[in-house]
Amino acid sequence: MEMNYVIDTFFALFAMTLIIFMVPGFAMLEAGLVRTKNVTSVLTVNVMIYAIASLAFMLIGYEYAFGSWEHQDSISKYAFFLFQMAFVGKVVNIMSGGVSERSRILPLALFTVVVGAFLYPTIVNITWGANFLSGTLFDISNMVDLAGCTVIHSTGGWALLAAILIMGSRRGRYKKNGAIQVIPASNIPLVTLGAFLLWIGWFGFNGGSVGAISSKENADAVALTIMNTNTAGLAGAIVGWLLTYFRYKKFDITMILNGALGGLVAVTAGPDQYTMYQPIIIGAIGGALVVFFVPIFDKLKMDDPVGALSVHLVNGIWGTLAVGVFVSDVSILTQLKGVIIVGAIVFPLSYVIIYIINKFFTLRANDEEQLEGIDAAECGMEAYPEFKRSI
Amino acid sequence: MEMNYVIDTFFALFAMTLIIFMVPGFAMLEAGLVRTKNVTSVLTVNVMIYAIASLAFMLIGYEYAFGSWEHQDSISKYAFFLFQMAFVGKVVNIMSGGVSERSRILPLALFTVVVGAFLYPTIVNITWGANFLSGTLFDISNMVDLAGCTVIHSTGGWALLAAILIMGSRRGRYKKNGAIQVIPASNIPLVTLGAFLLWIGWFGFNGGSVGAISSKENADAVALTIMNTNTAGLAGAIVGWLLTYFRYKKFDITMILNGALGGLVAVTAGPDQYTMYQPIIIGAIGGALVVFFVPIFDKLKMDDPVGALSVHLVNGIWGTLAVGVFVSDVSILTQLKGVIIVGAIVFPLSYVIIYIINKFFTLRANDEEQLEGIDAAECGMEAYPEFKRSI
Amino acid sequence: MEMNYVIDTFFALFAMTLIIFMVPGFAMLEAGLVRTKNVTSVLTVNVMIYAIASLAFMLIGYEYAFGSWEHQDSISKYAFFLFQMAFVGKVVNIMSGGVSERSRILPLALFTVVVGAFLYPTIVNITWGANFLSGTLFDISNMVDLAGCTVIHSTGGWALLAAILIMGSRRGRYKKNGAIQVIPASNIPLVTLGAFLLWIGWFGFNGGSVGAISSKENADAVALTIMNTNTAGLAGAIVGWLLTYFRYKKFDITMILNGALGGLVAVTAGPDQYTMYQPIIIGAIGGALVVFFVPIFDKLKMDDPVGALSVHLVNGIWGTLAVGVFVSDVSILTQLKGVIIVGAIVFPLSYVIIYIINKFFTLRANDEEQLEGIDAAECGMEAYPEFKRSI
Repeated sequence: MEMNYVIDTFFALFAMTLIIFMVPGFAMLEAGLVRTKNVTSVLTVNVMIYAIASLAFMLIGYEYAFGSWEHQDSISKYAFFLFQMAFVGKVVNIMSGGVSERSRILPLALFTVVVGAFLYPTIVNITWGANFLSGTLFDISNMVDLAGCTVIHSTGGWALLAAILIMGSRRGRYKKNGAIQVIPASNIPLVTLGAFLLWIGWFGFNGGSVGAISSKENADAVALTIMNTNTAGLAGAIVGWLLTYFRYKKFDITMILNGALGGLVAVTAGPDQYTMYQPIIIGAIGGALVVFFVPIFDKLKMDDPVGALSVHLVNGIWGTLAVGVFVSDVSILTQLKGVIIVGAIVFPLSYVIIYIINKFFTLRANDEEQLEGIDAAECGMEAYPEFKRSI
Repeated sequence: MEMNYVIDTFFALFAMTLIIFMVPGFAMLEAGLVRTKNVTSVLTVNVMIYAIASLAFMLIGYEYAFGSWEHQDSISKYAFFLFQMAFVGKVVNIMSGGVSERSRILPLALFTVVVGAFLYPTIVNITWGANFLSGTLFDISNMVDLAGCTVIHSTGGWALLAAILIMGSRRGRYKKNGAIQVIPASNIPLVTLGAFLLWIGWFGFNGGSVGAISSKENADAVALTIMNTNTAGLAGAIVGWLLTYFRYKKFDITMILNGALGGLVAVTAGPDQYTMYQPIIIGAIGGALVVFFVPIFDKLKMDDPVGALSVHLVNGIWGTLAVGVFVSDVSILTQLKGVIIVGAIVFPLSYVIIYIINKFFTLRANDEEQLEGIDAAECGMEAYPEFKRSI
Repeated sequence: MEMNYVIDTFFALFAMTLIIFMVPGFAMLEAGLVRTKNVTSVLTVNVMIYAIASLAFMLIGYEYAFGSWEHQDSISKYAFFLFQMAFVGKVVNIMSGGVSERSRILPLALFTVVVGAFLYPTIVNITWGANFLSGTLFDISNMVDLAGCTVIHSTGGWALLAAILIMGSRRGRYKKNGAIQVIPASNIPLVTLGAFLLWIGWFGFNGGSVGAISSKENADAVALTIMNTNTAGLAGAIVGWLLTYFRYKKFDITMILNGALGGLVAVTAGPDQYTMYQPIIIGAIGGALVVFFVPIFDKLKMDDPVGALSVHLVNGIWGTLAVGVFVSDVSILTQLKGVIIVGAIVFPLSYVIIYIINKFFTLRANDEEQLEGIDAAECGMEAYPEFKRSI
């Protein structure tokens, strides 16, 4: 039907556009969370990730993931590509955010090529794509993961875990006496702006992943998906607020926003399958997991300036399992198998790739560079050169 | 017709998404207008308003407003809910913005629950919704208010008026000798960004309120509505510019932007019914009202750091009456009756609710807290901790 | 067909909305690139350009450009107007950005009136519109220019060239000994945010310029157009990165972003006609042109704080010729003729108009005003009054 093709193509372009707002979204979120001396390099990394990951995916990764450019015909193949391309940079964003304030840019750029051309497409291949594991014991294509709870968020999280293990923490973050140096976010308006651009982008991410809107049934599924996505974010924000408020008697906006993002990740595996009240529970647990895991990772000296491990890895796992918990005909074991196999592929592969890159290009900025700021060392350009610093 | 259902659902989701851009819009506008020491708390309030008001509306307010989740069937019920939900936080945003730099967060959060669950749904009930006043003398459902000129903007404005009367002005704003302490905006780029996100959100607000786009007639009505909305904003900006320029020989961007917002509010009651030139007059008057009323409220010692009374309350009233002035088959008396009855419900109700909340939770930050900044007192987190302050 | 009318109207409104995001996009980009003492005036100019150019176009320019409000009937005439109106301010944005940090606001506002009512509509008239040159030797309506590579970008660039020749450089930019004073950007997050809002706006600009999406063929053309637009931006960014990195061993985010914008301009004349790999070359050349021409204009003492001549004029020319190079049935001579005739109209006309305005209103701020900052002189309002300056 021509009209279905037209409307679904238009809808995919709309959804893709919302996801692209996540590019400045991640950039603003991270630029606000790091210290001013590292802001330019964080922004540079974000821009380069979008450019490099997208082009690598276009030239190499996309065909590897889906088998061919012509694998579907219900919407324009260019729109389908754009929608899928909008996802790929996110995987590296998750990883790069978590190693902010201590990573050199060139090795990150090299890792981005590998993720866009090979690592992320491998995971897409075995879940949403051509599936080279089809018919084997390791086939996980029946895992329910509408919009990348495991495929994107856990994948990025596993890569980040590998990177943190190899790179270590920021200079001065963990004292010899066991104390943790608090490093405050430098620009809260940017954090807020970034979080909301991500939130809005999620409507496109999850809504667009339904794949079509051109029947009554699909239109309802898309609308329910977006509603459930939003609801989980609301619940995550509220739980992030309440838990920190009752503990510290202060309103911690970074925890409220990270709670919202945790809720948004948590709902991402099955927002089309939940009733309209279930995301309240799923998102609330997502927000709570962020509040609990941020200090746990800190105790483990896993230094993650933006909380990406808690938001994306922990909630990527929780969110994928949640479909098994809340949807009656989805097996939690199937979901768990998917989670494990993706982790068992991504974590060691990332570890090896980052290890090799690190051998040749030294990912970690040295102590002097970190003290001076990555901006001076790598970019020769301050983010706010005219503002006098008090720290 | 399935295709109409599909297209109108898609359109509602598109419009809803634009309105959600108003969440960071309000947040950036207000964060830019207040002093740096109050920026984090203003942002925290904005995030919490979105989370709390939306969830309260979903769980309680929506059914009260519209009678049931199944009250319409021309688009997906989830899309209809999302579109309506996108409105609710705006009412509290209008109020919270106007009491910035002196309000505590927890009582605002409580008020938000009441607005989302009860106060705003009451007004929706008697105008666009189930209408418990139907058949009584007080029935105002024939008031023309396409997108909430009275239902949202005046409602928020009346609530703000009540809050200002109860809370008083910021510490040091009005001197004993009658002088007014000028308190400059701290971040003009954020003000500009926020105003344009609101402007774009308005396209969704007013365009989406036409309710359908899937016939030629509706498509024309939507396009005319968005054009008229934009035109009124243009005219408001230009009048805001000219009036301040001829008076002070300076370009005052906050007045230009508030003039635009005044024009946008002013056109909101009937943008689908005006010819394409009438919004120039309506918006110009809207911009002029902002320029005239901002100093008037200051003379009355109604301290409103963001100009919300002039933008939303004054223009909410003007804009609702304007339909009676410019559209031949709409009675200005019907419009006036609607304005009065909504004011007569919202102002006293808000006053009582805020009064009670204030009794138990003290809305106003004390003088030391205001001097130190609400951020330190309530959030324990500065917005820009590394930038040395000159003030 | 009613459904085609509906869908194409909806699509035009969607595309228009994306373009309007370019208003804050240009504003943030320019506000980030100039020094803090000139930020408020740059933002004021951006707001006024949108208001004045749009209203002048609505009241005068639009009918002059297209002959009548009823010249097409495949979509709502209001949607068609809005889409065209979204373009007009961009022409002045290109010009105003390049004369930042030394221009007075009022004469710019007057020039904006002339561009919106007369200059830009003249170029639209002879290319996409009523065409008063039809049948003459100077008819250029067969030049291929989908979305304004010449009509908008070169036009803005030629006007900027005229303005720079008349106004001269910023105070202190070019020393007597031939040295060039480096003036660093004041706020890199704003530059990044602005560039990505422009990038996203380009999807609407180019995608919407296809004019319809309601057939399978059109849906494919729109999707290909947006994909090609994006690809050229990716390639421009990567080339901007590589060329500056190999030369300076630093990552220069302003060059990466300007490279992306150069690529986006370069693809704008024919993104619907290229294969999906050609934009990699076209955008890469676009990015390279920016890197090469920025220092060339500086050597010529053409002071352009935002690189607009390289991004918009040079790439406007290159992009228009590129269609002749890459598309077999388009003649490069036809393209060249269009480029030349538009330049031969816009450059002298702009020169005369700006010359006259300058006679009566002095465009250039004097040395004291520049030293103090245009904000103090023109707006009486600092952009960041509380942040202590180190410069």
